[in-house]
Amino acid sequence: MSEGTIPASLPLRNDLIGEEPYGAPQLDVPVCLNVNENPYPPSHAVVRSIEKRVREAAAGLNRYPDREHMELRQAFVDYLAKESQADLTTDEVWGANGSNEIMLQLFQAFGGPGRNAIGCDPTYSMYPEYARDTFTTWNTAPRRADFTLDVDATIAAIDANEPSMVVLTSPNNPTGTPLPMPDLERILDHCQNARVAGAADGVHPIVVVDEAYIEFRDPGTPSATTLVGTYANLAVSRTMSKAFAFAGARVGYIAASKGIIDCLRIVRMPYHLSAVTQAAALAGFDHTDEQLSQVGHLRETREATAAWLREQTYAGKPLEVAPSQSNFLMFGGHFDDRGAIFDEMLERGVLIRVVGPEGWLRVCMGTDEEMKVFRKTLVESMRAVEARAATR
Amino acid sequence: MSEGTIPASLPLRNDLIGEEPYGAPQLDVPVCLNVNENPYPPSHAVVRSIEKRVREAAAGLNRYPDREHMELRQAFVDYLAKESQADLTTDEVWGANGSNEIMLQLFQAFGGPGRNAIGCDPTYSMYPEYARDTFTTWNTAPRRADFTLDVDATIAAIDANEPSMVVLTSPNNPTGTPLPMPDLERILDHCQNARVAGAADGVHPIVVVDEAYIEFRDPGTPSATTLVGTYANLAVSRTMSKAFAFAGARVGYIAASKGIIDCLRIVRMPYHLSAVTQAAALAGFDHTDEQLSQVGHLRETREATAAWLREQTYAGKPLEVAPSQSNFLMFGGHFDDRGAIFDEMLERGVLIRVVGPEGWLRVCMGTDEEMKVFRKTLVESMRAVEARAATR
Repeated sequence: MSEGTIPASLPLRNDLIGEEPYGAPQLDVPVCLNVNENPYPPSHAVVRSIEKRVREAAAGLNRYPDREHMELRQAFVDYLAKESQADLTTDEVWGANGSNEIMLQLFQAFGGPGRNAIGCDPTYSMYPEYARDTFTTWNTAPRRADFTLDVDATIAAIDANEPSMVVLTSPNNPTGTPLPMPDLERILDHCQNARVAGAADGVHPIVVVDEAYIEFRDPGTPSATTLVGTYANLAVSRTMSKAFAFAGARVGYIAASKGIIDCLRIVRMPYHLSAVTQAAALAGFDHTDEQLSQVGHLRETREATAAWLREQTYAGKPLEVAPSQSNFLMFGGHFDDRGAIFDEMLERGVLIRVVGPEGWLRVCMGTDEEMKVFRKTLVESMRAVEARAATR
Repeated sequence: MSEGTIPASLPLRNDLIGEEPYGAPQLDVPVCLNVNENPYPPSHAVVRSIEKRVREAAAGLNRYPDREHMELRQAFVDYLAKESQADLTTDEVWGANGSNEIMLQLFQAFGGPGRNAIGCDPTYSMYPEYARDTFTTWNTAPRRADFTLDVDATIAAIDANEPSMVVLTSPNNPTGTPLPMPDLERILDHCQNARVAGAADGVHPIVVVDEAYIEFRDPGTPSATTLVGTYANLAVSRTMSKAFAFAGARVGYIAASKGIIDCLRIVRMPYHLSAVTQAAALAGFDHTDEQLSQVGHLRETREATAAWLREQTYAGKPLEVAPSQSNFLMFGGHFDDRGAIFDEMLERGVLIRVVGPEGWLRVCMGTDEEMKVFRKTLVESMRAVEARAATR
């Protein structure tokens, strides 16, 4: 996997030499709280629907799938109407193999050499990879110390860099921070007149809002999908991986103006979405209420875990917890050796994630039983690291 | 879909402005012989295996899939050992969402601005799209008049252009022309010392052999996969879409040196291959013999259809047929208005493909019943076009 195994005679892109494949370790560990999965597997009813839908698709598997995946796009429309009160048409939604592929298609269509995209750091660590893979320069605007979006700093960065894409994250990963609608609207409005480096006059940046975790927000909070009809420069990325407990199915989708969708259609691979994937996703949407039924409980788990974490101490100081509207929490803030705490926890069979700014760790919400183990293991691990430090 | 619907304010890449999405028309027509699908649907036994494997995967769909898809890679190894007598390890194979994604990953890893790739025209019309999507320049070397590879011209083009990738197609699409192993070996040998523009000394081009249709070759003909152990600069792309009758499942794969696979791992999306796709593919490989059982019959259909086509005339001259080792035939050679013949056939419910050099059309092998309709319809359509020409 590492650089050393790739012979120097291979014409790997110069800028990829020494790069490592992206991805959290896939380890066989009793408690996996590292990749923000939903801990609740699909019910028997969902599994039966998947089986049925896939059986029907399998009988015609010798034929290519519907390239435009129209039935699934209608399901996206129906779901967003129900979950987010968004009023969309099938021309305004589009699916792909995970929101990873959605984001890649956006960068393929709107990025490229001489272009740049802006994100607000700290944020999702895949964004620079999409940029790298499409030869797009990745720039960042800083968030405030409490990880909320700094709208003025973001607008200043837009004016300074003239990006073709502004990537916002709602809620943000790894911090869990929500994106207030007035902040989003200020940036959308600003982008409607902002310049794009290397493009003709009259071309303006698009704003991509990554709502991978939006279902975990507090009830009543609006989704950016409700603004798609208002802003032709808005693209909202969603996924079935998280709240929908469908990470293994790799189904991401986007709500955006028809113009943006038409741009993605130019760069998509023909038949990018298999008949089996379309069938599995439709089966998931057959059970929307049930699939989302655990979301409320995971939200409660997050609040209870956040409260508990704030009562814990490391090196004599209470832990900080970033306010989260997601199914994960970034906590710590003053871990002097977060790698050591991660290692201690892994040794005890609990996998969390070293991600985000120095001093912080991220944990996603598991089942009640898993969270009990997490609490016990975190305390033991912090004590072990403190004890080692005291003997130095 | 067309340029006109994309607002000029969107920052679509300058070089994509005016481009159309790639893909053959998806029309609801009685006889579809346009996209080289296998006309035989999976059997009940295959469908049952898909159902069973997908049910098992569905129960854990809340978790991300095995990013390294190790069980499926073992199935690729076993299949290639059986079908092509290739002696490979799981380090030397890799899967993706169709060979489209395999090819895109190759271009992402080895192409890019300042780099170029070479193909041998006429060839598969998606290659320039992969190049465009990755900012790679696409160059071509000409084939001989009979569509066989011109090795000297190809080597001259390699020396002149210093590509990072040489893309060969075995058998070629849309011509069906086989790639003789001695020709491939000459190019592989030459590339081991050829230069790559924009790369360091000691970096040499890789040779990509696209074997999407290889199972339809005459029995006993070797596959390039048997050379993977010998040439570290060789990558052989395969697919389950054609002989395997799995077009709807979107499963492509590659056999190549571990070094090449490690390069692809740098640019692949994390979790690019869903658990459902992996399950469906494994189910297909549970029935290798059966899935391939129709290949022999399709080969016979090809030979019979080619012989019949050569007996037909258009404008007083016999039709030409390019010798094919695939499940399709390129025929005509002197159609003065191939679009008119295509249209006449479509009106009669038979969809073929306008592709390849001027004067030619392509048809893929359907069921016996479909081929009967094809023959009748082609004769009627040629007579209709001739009759119209006579009245002008």
